[in-house]
Amino acid sequence: MLVVMKREATREQIDAVVERIKEFGIEPVPLPGAERTAIGTFGTTSRAAAEAVESLPGVAEVVPVSRPFKLASREVIATDTVVRVGSAGIGAGQPLAVIAGPCAVESRDVTIETARAVRAAGGTALRGGAFKPRTSPYSFRGMGEQGLEILAEARAETGLPIVTEVLSPSDVDAVARVADCLQIGARNMQNYSLLDAVGEQTKPVLLKRGMSATIEELLLSAEYVLARGNRNVILCERGIRTFERYTRNTFDVNAIPLLKRLTHLPVLADPSHGTGKWYLVAPVALAAVAAGADGLIVEVHPSPDHALSDGFQSLTFEHLRALLSVVPEVARAVGRYDRVTAS
Amino acid sequence: MLVVMKREATREQIDAVVERIKEFGIEPVPLPGAERTAIGTFGTTSRAAAEAVESLPGVAEVVPVSRPFKLASREVIATDTVVRVGSAGIGAGQPLAVIAGPCAVESRDVTIETARAVRAAGGTALRGGAFKPRTSPYSFRGMGEQGLEILAEARAETGLPIVTEVLSPSDVDAVARVADCLQIGARNMQNYSLLDAVGEQTKPVLLKRGMSATIEELLLSAEYVLARGNRNVILCERGIRTFERYTRNTFDVNAIPLLKRLTHLPVLADPSHGTGKWYLVAPVALAAVAAGADGLIVEVHPSPDHALSDGFQSLTFEHLRALLSVVPEVARAVGRYDRVTAS
Amino acid sequence: MLVVMKREATREQIDAVVERIKEFGIEPVPLPGAERTAIGTFGTTSRAAAEAVESLPGVAEVVPVSRPFKLASREVIATDTVVRVGSAGIGAGQPLAVIAGPCAVESRDVTIETARAVRAAGGTALRGGAFKPRTSPYSFRGMGEQGLEILAEARAETGLPIVTEVLSPSDVDAVARVADCLQIGARNMQNYSLLDAVGEQTKPVLLKRGMSATIEELLLSAEYVLARGNRNVILCERGIRTFERYTRNTFDVNAIPLLKRLTHLPVLADPSHGTGKWYLVAPVALAAVAAGADGLIVEVHPSPDHALSDGFQSLTFEHLRALLSVVPEVARAVGRYDRVTAS
Amino acid sequence: MLVVMKREATREQIDAVVERIKEFGIEPVPLPGAERTAIGTFGTTSRAAAEAVESLPGVAEVVPVSRPFKLASREVIATDTVVRVGSAGIGAGQPLAVIAGPCAVESRDVTIETARAVRAAGGTALRGGAFKPRTSPYSFRGMGEQGLEILAEARAETGLPIVTEVLSPSDVDAVARVADCLQIGARNMQNYSLLDAVGEQTKPVLLKRGMSATIEELLLSAEYVLARGNRNVILCERGIRTFERYTRNTFDVNAIPLLKRLTHLPVLADPSHGTGKWYLVAPVALAAVAAGADGLIVEVHPSPDHALSDGFQSLTFEHLRALLSVVPEVARAVGRYDRVTAS
Repeated sequence: MLVVMKREATREQIDAVVERIKEFGIEPVPLPGAERTAIGTFGTTSRAAAEAVESLPGVAEVVPVSRPFKLASREVIATDTVVRVGSAGIGAGQPLAVIAGPCAVESRDVTIETARAVRAAGGTALRGGAFKPRTSPYSFRGMGEQGLEILAEARAETGLPIVTEVLSPSDVDAVARVADCLQIGARNMQNYSLLDAVGEQTKPVLLKRGMSATIEELLLSAEYVLARGNRNVILCERGIRTFERYTRNTFDVNAIPLLKRLTHLPVLADPSHGTGKWYLVAPVALAAVAAGADGLIVEVHPSPDHALSDGFQSLTFEHLRALLSVVPEVARAVGRYDRVTAS
Repeated sequence: MLVVMKREATREQIDAVVERIKEFGIEPVPLPGAERTAIGTFGTTSRAAAEAVESLPGVAEVVPVSRPFKLASREVIATDTVVRVGSAGIGAGQPLAVIAGPCAVESRDVTIETARAVRAAGGTALRGGAFKPRTSPYSFRGMGEQGLEILAEARAETGLPIVTEVLSPSDVDAVARVADCLQIGARNMQNYSLLDAVGEQTKPVLLKRGMSATIEELLLSAEYVLARGNRNVILCERGIRTFERYTRNTFDVNAIPLLKRLTHLPVLADPSHGTGKWYLVAPVALAAVAAGADGLIVEVHPSPDHALSDGFQSLTFEHLRALLSVVPEVARAVGRYDRVTAS
Repeated sequence: MLVVMKREATREQIDAVVERIKEFGIEPVPLPGAERTAIGTFGTTSRAAAEAVESLPGVAEVVPVSRPFKLASREVIATDTVVRVGSAGIGAGQPLAVIAGPCAVESRDVTIETARAVRAAGGTALRGGAFKPRTSPYSFRGMGEQGLEILAEARAETGLPIVTEVLSPSDVDAVARVADCLQIGARNMQNYSLLDAVGEQTKPVLLKRGMSATIEELLLSAEYVLARGNRNVILCERGIRTFERYTRNTFDVNAIPLLKRLTHLPVLADPSHGTGKWYLVAPVALAAVAAGADGLIVEVHPSPDHALSDGFQSLTFEHLRALLSVVPEVARAVGRYDRVTAS
Repeated sequence: MLVVMKREATREQIDAVVERIKEFGIEPVPLPGAERTAIGTFGTTSRAAAEAVESLPGVAEVVPVSRPFKLASREVIATDTVVRVGSAGIGAGQPLAVIAGPCAVESRDVTIETARAVRAAGGTALRGGAFKPRTSPYSFRGMGEQGLEILAEARAETGLPIVTEVLSPSDVDAVARVADCLQIGARNMQNYSLLDAVGEQTKPVLLKRGMSATIEELLLSAEYVLARGNRNVILCERGIRTFERYTRNTFDVNAIPLLKRLTHLPVLADPSHGTGKWYLVAPVALAAVAAGADGLIVEVHPSPDHALSDGFQSLTFEHLRALLSVVPEVARAVGRYDRVTAS
């Protein structure tokens, strides 16, 4: 349930409601707002508890909340969340974010060169994997900590904040020391010990939708992070598994406006994994912007043919420039007036 | 294989190639082009046949074509096909088409009222089902021939050409007498006797993708129509079945640029069935335009709450006007300079 | 709703209930049973109608039926339906049925040879397609009416009844003249004009589940046939489309006991299409029997390598014999005491 | 590639081959067999390396291995692996294993009571989750270490070995100290840091297939464990996500014989998660045995209505007894002569 307090409710009244809820064995989560406080509760809520709370002083209303996700829900938190990655704000009312970079950090040179191209094209942040989840144990699994150092150097060089994936709870500290935003990959969307771990630190989290996950499951995974105290979660649609064989995944464009309706969290689109074909990345990126995405995350590589991972879906620098010259036109057409400004 | 004739090849040389191919038990299909003629062949092509043909006078080149679809393929027909529905051209280089109307023709008044609203909003054609495929035999299955008469009256009233579905080979003649374009619904995408039947008449065919069909299967179904001699086929992405439960279908936005790459046929988007939720129709329609669709097909109803079918996914007239005021902006942003002009 | 009449209800009382229901604009379907009559109604049932009928003489009870399928439902018809194909009964309490034969009728010799092998192995009926649905218009589409003649000859030769597919409403009469059972293929599960057509004739119908159809959709398609008056419908699980690439389809073994629970209709298993690999046919056939299937439909071919269609999933005669020597053991183990008797 | 040594090859010759392979920058993995040794290599194998090795003394043959999984492949290891869980052998040639128990360890009493019932019914091992992965952070997540203690007590009481899930690399040591077999759940099938961690300890691993994973992906995840040195991996088919809404998952019965063909590892079936409905568990369990599974893992609970997790798919003790009285009949029918012996 959601207990909405009156605007004039006192601190003492709020505390009394919190205590009363606890007596019923239910965990209350105070949600202070600009105008008034609400108190969410999780787990099974008894009818008796709702009635007991409704009669307390300072309580305006008790709303049964049926969605299984709470802190991620617009019903509970109505204001759009803006997440800061470095100095850039991502979310509703913010300029469209463009996070770009190589799939994997392969070498210092390629990474720095790509970071410069991303900045020159007007990108918001640099992406790149130091720890790579791979279907086969015999594939390149990333440069690890050395990759993190290269990313830090690329940030020092270009000023772009860094988004990079973390695979294991035991790596969270090391990655969080360097990264400006921690990515949870699609395969780990329901790795709950990892979600707990990133929820207990303070760097923002970019949570990618699992390959066959429903929207509700994505929001419940976000809820894991939110419930641990980290409210800076960015969601990312990256394509779902379907029967189609021409493409690697099927970008679920419905997910963009649906998520914007259900949650206050920012929503990014990943047309690189969402299609798996470089020649589909630009049209699908534009589609995502037209559908209301708060930003894009795309793979670029100076020489996609030579990439150690995902070359067939990476844009060249030239492709990225071309894409980012059209993106603002589409963003404006659908009413997102801020633009990507190329330097 | 595809036999490409020299520019200067004579009629006799072309005929000789056709005859020679037949001797191998293979069916040749002459494909006259602006500059030169090509001759496609279907079925298994023996190496011997290819070699025999290659040496004939007037032959420039023999190209093995590996795609299972041929007449639908850009490799075989490089020029974009423009299909005329009434006087409107649909396809590359044409203004974005907007086909709108009620899911089912329910009554004369609702249909005429909707047709007027579609014309006023700048629509290209009127859609509406007289024969309705329904999962349950106990659901409303359409008004049948009476529905066709109402559609004809709506056309007379507004000048909008008519797109309507045909369910059975035995209804093709009756529907083709009235309709300007015959729709093959998703459930019938692999109803081969129906595909044969619409391939043998001359009205254009709007072929919707099956709920779980791959792109290749869609193109092979188009091939059925094309192979019977009807070259006026419009493809339509209308959402695929996925695990998502918030939406009815998942609009496959990847399919738009992928189809434009693989085939010369026009590609429409149906965001009404592609989402199943009226509040997702506009953002997904804009996404489809941004991704390069040649047009939209959307459900509108004067009073969606009272629709006998699909009310939850129909736009009101006001929604349609609002959508069609933004569509041209997005179309322009992605380089389709022609616009939907509202009267 | 379902109106259950008292055991002693008179003909006049039943008729009065039927008339009263019609006054509410609802279509009544009398369902005479061994002990008493029930009357089903379809479409929206008003509360007022239910109450009006409940008070009529002879009415025992009015049961609201919530399942969208009615005549297919065990809630409406509790007794297991046994369908006769030739002289063989298929369904609960009957010997396990084994319908076997080539995918397509390719020639007289192969068909007769296969029919003899099927009879020798203890098969119940011969299957074979004269009209073949093919994804590509350039594939072999069957021998048509000539194929039907060959099937009739095979029956005359072996005494095995014939199961063959019909693709178009206009072919129903011709196929029904020869076949003992009409098959509706997976691609046509929602071809409603075809379902109507087979529902209006009297030969039994073997209805295959669509590749991505749910169990409810399968039962609703059966309902189309049943509602037209043909109560001899056999359902067939033949594998669903999944993400797996080693197999052609994924046999849904859950569907067997689930269907047996939901419906009184017989349920067959097609492990040939359900796997698409000959080496998986036997274990999956045995699994289907263990799960409670009323029979099997399998593809056999004297020389699978030379089959014009589906050779990679056909059993040889030797494989069929080996399979049918184990099938009765498994059937007995799960309590189906009747056995396939080899001649 | 796979380098097969001659039977009489000496230790020195084997070492020389290993060294030569390393010179090409390729990682060799010696695979000692009963009769002869083979040496597998992973990653890209150059033609030059293959030729260089082929000419070395003691080499019988160099086989290119194309499957992306190696140590899991029958092509590399032809002998069936038998995994010991406690004193019970699981795999080909062993009695059918039956692992049963509650979904979650909820209390000492329920767990001990269930363990006794499992032993009485002839079960092989006790399952029960101390750490539970849950879609929602607000669901019961298990008793943790206290749950492990209860499981240890149940083992002391009944002699049944313990199978329990591990969710996080940091819990592997604690779980491995108590459990006889570590379960990796479906959501963690591609949690590579967890796979690495269980690969580095010695207790056997029961690896469940991910909800939308292909068979190849399952085998590649097994490969992660095998490649770290733990060769005691049991695979488990537990149902895949499909469009069906009557059931929770769709048990993929094809996977059983397909896995038995592709890999030497034991294959279990989980009909509880594979159906999600208690009334489908028994027929699907029997189907899995008929298809060749090496064992079953089923949920039982003294009072499924009161289970904190998954009650709707748990068998009662009576159901378990009934199922285990039929299982040996089916196993015998398909040639697995060993039987489950009820005490």
